[in-house]
Amino acid sequence: MAQDNVLLLDFWPSSYGMRVKIALAEKGITYECKQEDLDAKSSLLLENNPVHKMIPVLVHNGKPICESLNIVQYIDEVWNHKLHLLPTDPYQRSQARFWGDYIDKHIYSIGKKVWTGKGKSKKEFIECLKTLEGELGNKPYFGGEGFGYVDLALVPFTSWFYTYETLGNLNLEAECPKLAAWARRCMARESVAKALPHPHKIYDFALQYKQKHGLE
Amino acid sequence: MAQDNVLLLDFWPSSYGMRVKIALAEKGITYECKQEDLDAKSSLLLENNPVHKMIPVLVHNGKPICESLNIVQYIDEVWNHKLHLLPTDPYQRSQARFWGDYIDKHIYSIGKKVWTGKGKSKKEFIECLKTLEGELGNKPYFGGEGFGYVDLALVPFTSWFYTYETLGNLNLEAECPKLAAWARRCMARESVAKALPHPHKIYDFALQYKQKHGLE
Repeated sequence: MAQDNVLLLDFWPSSYGMRVKIALAEKGITYECKQEDLDAKSSLLLENNPVHKMIPVLVHNGKPICESLNIVQYIDEVWNHKLHLLPTDPYQRSQARFWGDYIDKHIYSIGKKVWTGKGKSKKEFIECLKTLEGELGNKPYFGGEGFGYVDLALVPFTSWFYTYETLGNLNLEAECPKLAAWARRCMARESVAKALPHPHKIYDFALQYKQKHGLE
Repeated sequence: MAQDNVLLLDFWPSSYGMRVKIALAEKGITYECKQEDLDAKSSLLLENNPVHKMIPVLVHNGKPICESLNIVQYIDEVWNHKLHLLPTDPYQRSQARFWGDYIDKHIYSIGKKVWTGKGKSKKEFIECLKTLEGELGNKPYFGGEGFGYVDLALVPFTSWFYTYETLGNLNLEAECPKLAAWARRCMARESVAKALPHPHKIYDFALQYKQKHGLE
């Protein structure tokens, strides 16, 4: 097979884009990354994700794959010579997909209300994180002993924790100590450390976003 | 392996429950089906889906799997001796998952606004169906020549079409003729015909629901 051509359309503060970067790093895949301007989306983005017009999009040998956890599953299936991100057992796989879906349905949307100050969502946000912490339990990672799909789905949002805490007046370490310890464990992993922007950089972005959208 | 014990917790008008019934029928699996009263959920449901407390739940040899498309993927992976519901090629799989996810994010929620009369959503609903019709194109099924995952994800909602049309004052056959022809093609399949309630039964349920919730 000729050399794979792998292109990621990304927007750096996006937790969804970070997921794909972690997956690609875990599999040791070389790729090009293009940053999108979401106020002036490129024709490349619009052509490759005509339905949602959203990042991330992975373009593999000219063919687009959209939606972050779908991309992660694709990466896991195509480059299956290395560490499996999803477990191989069907029941464990179903549980991993369930929690990935739970994160997708809750964390971004409720978290955004927390940091933009729209709606009273602090309690709901903490409840979601506590639900996730309950699932983690005393395991080092969500899937057990090794880093995997659910860790990868959730850990990008920890780069936003400083922003949630500062703008939402929360103390996530105090509320969810096991989750905080898990986040540090994940950050010790090169794939994660390299994919996540510094929390202060995210915070600056969030401040600019609020200013731009009159949310101060 | 001992005989499998398969239990489905269901609520008959749910398109999500119908998906699981189609998948089980396609795989030829014998199962028990328990109907839930959503106003008085059983302890069985609450124990087996403590996070969402929603049907459908598949309990396989005592272990619960939640979220309909997650259940369908589980069924496809465990009972892999028969017809594959998802394609085997990773790229085709990613496209199937993408469209399954699109249906999940749009059809139920927008469709509910149509039949309950809450919000102006007719145009948006038609646009979603036209997007799906565009993806179907001139193929007999979403995946190509054979019935599969995306067909199974969408076809239960066609049992609601009469309700959308009557209560939302729409003509879906006129708006989306290819999709209507596809629905008839799917209904010729025993697994689908047996899983979908008669449209008039759904309509009666919708009328009762509206009355009960003061939506008339």
